[in-house]
Amino acid sequence: MAYTKKNRLTAEEYLAGILAGDRVILAMAITLVESQLEEDRTIAEAIIEQVSNRGEKSIRIGVTGVPGVGKSTFIESFGEYVISQNKKLSVLAIDPSSTKTGGSILGDKTRMENLAKNPNAFIRPSASRLALGGVTHKTREAVLLCEAAGFDVIIIETVGVGQSEVAVRELVDFSLLLMLAGAGDELQGIKKGIMEMADAIAITKADGDNVLMSEQAKKSYQNALHLFPVADNGWLPKVTTCSALKNEGMDEIWNMMLKFAGDMRSNGFWKENRNVQQLAWMHSAIEQSLRADFYNDKHVKSVLETIENQVQKGTQTAWSAAKQLLSLFYKK
Amino acid sequence: MAYTKKNRLTAEEYLAGILAGDRVILAMAITLVESQLEEDRTIAEAIIEQVSNRGEKSIRIGVTGVPGVGKSTFIESFGEYVISQNKKLSVLAIDPSSTKTGGSILGDKTRMENLAKNPNAFIRPSASRLALGGVTHKTREAVLLCEAAGFDVIIIETVGVGQSEVAVRELVDFSLLLMLAGAGDELQGIKKGIMEMADAIAITKADGDNVLMSEQAKKSYQNALHLFPVADNGWLPKVTTCSALKNEGMDEIWNMMLKFAGDMRSNGFWKENRNVQQLAWMHSAIEQSLRADFYNDKHVKSVLETIENQVQKGTQTAWSAAKQLLSLFYKK
Repeated sequence: MAYTKKNRLTAEEYLAGILAGDRVILAMAITLVESQLEEDRTIAEAIIEQVSNRGEKSIRIGVTGVPGVGKSTFIESFGEYVISQNKKLSVLAIDPSSTKTGGSILGDKTRMENLAKNPNAFIRPSASRLALGGVTHKTREAVLLCEAAGFDVIIIETVGVGQSEVAVRELVDFSLLLMLAGAGDELQGIKKGIMEMADAIAITKADGDNVLMSEQAKKSYQNALHLFPVADNGWLPKVTTCSALKNEGMDEIWNMMLKFAGDMRSNGFWKENRNVQQLAWMHSAIEQSLRADFYNDKHVKSVLETIENQVQKGTQTAWSAAKQLLSLFYKK
Repeated sequence: MAYTKKNRLTAEEYLAGILAGDRVILAMAITLVESQLEEDRTIAEAIIEQVSNRGEKSIRIGVTGVPGVGKSTFIESFGEYVISQNKKLSVLAIDPSSTKTGGSILGDKTRMENLAKNPNAFIRPSASRLALGGVTHKTREAVLLCEAAGFDVIIIETVGVGQSEVAVRELVDFSLLLMLAGAGDELQGIKKGIMEMADAIAITKADGDNVLMSEQAKKSYQNALHLFPVADNGWLPKVTTCSALKNEGMDEIWNMMLKFAGDMRSNGFWKENRNVQQLAWMHSAIEQSLRADFYNDKHVKSVLETIENQVQKGTQTAWSAAKQLLSLFYKK
């Protein structure tokens, strides 16, 4: 099939490419789904409807942790292990951008070079531009597309503490929190709210001089986790150590995830969790549609720039400008 | 004036109370503005329109930093200094909540006890519940209300690294990043994207054994900041040390902010920055209105619960449910 980045394919062509596992078409489809253009949205909706129920067998894994904990190197090492177990792996990154420069906070360094070359891996290091008008990253849709393309392990990587963990929790089956030994609990944001969102904690960089400290940290996190009430699904969060440098501990983490998947699939919580996530997705899809409908509305479009200029010059307040635009939108 | 928390006041009563500096009515007005109820929104809009241009003389300060850096103790010490300079201070906290428990990530500890008792301080430790349907915290409106009530220094405190700094940058005149000495740059998320958003860095807990390390950290951050291009407004980010425990360094930080305000007011960037923020606010007000209009729509309301149940049970996909609700909303 001949295609260029600029030519739009039909929904059928996208679907055929995705189902055939074509990584180029998969990447194009994710870009399409993220687009706010009216023409793109129609095609995107047709594709998403077709791929909505193909992820039954996949495992969606959230990997979080503060900058410096070694997320990229962990994912590279863990990813290669997972692929060695005959799995196909997708890595989607949620990366808050700098609104000042448009640059990425995660940095411009080349990430996961080896994994990116592996034919059984698909890496999407997209930055969610926090543009005016709010282009939200469509990670849920990207997950579905990857699953339809045959990727059965999906890692969603995010940076930071707080809000991002909350958001990722709504997208994944299993949530892994990476921690460093000896860095001080407080500094790592290891508060109740964050720890209770993790299904497991992996202490990274447990090699060389760090081994002893990592084992100590493991014990202290285990003790801390025991203080929390048992989750409804009956899972007791685990703590492990690992070294991406030495490729150690990855088997233990993967086996733990398989155990989790097995347990949850038999007690019904796997399906229940995904159903609850569907509800969150419904609300988020509604909000994204409302926004897109608004900014694509021709009455709004015809005056938006003028009004934006007035607001930016201070000749109209934000509040009255918003009211004016909304009344144009609803008048149609 | 007699009022209870449950009785709604008229817009005029709210306004009179706010302009008289009544802290109870101010708190009630912020709650009103955050409400998604149709009746509340009408009154809230009337109030906000009246207070939109009262913040000319205020200084809006963002205080960010990872958990454990000592934000609350810093703000308590800094706040008391600012009040000693004949200012009235408001502290608004943006605190991502745990969706699992509804609990606050910042923790339930009593915060800023002394400051809270000060008649010249108003503290709003609100948690932004990330509820389904997306209730967004209306921090901009809260800022305007505080300014109208005579508070001329507004501190917006937020937790975490990444997304939250970006969001706060759009609300404030001056952005202060708190850092700990000797904790490792990487661990503190001290990436280019975050540092370039700060107008100053204050190294906290510079007391006792920490003094020497804090001075060293100050030098190394100063060197790092010199590598960045000079901002359009001509301001060179400053690095200072301080101790909330000993109430040291607060005068230096406050004077730096006054210098910044003076410089920016004379070179025009103060006004320009606020105008750009107005634009961001316009977009955010539009999105919040669209959401509220949708969830308040009577056609949507009449079926929402049924459809939510179907989605949660897995008998309808999120995507098709969203489409169905949107078509009900637009049909009216």
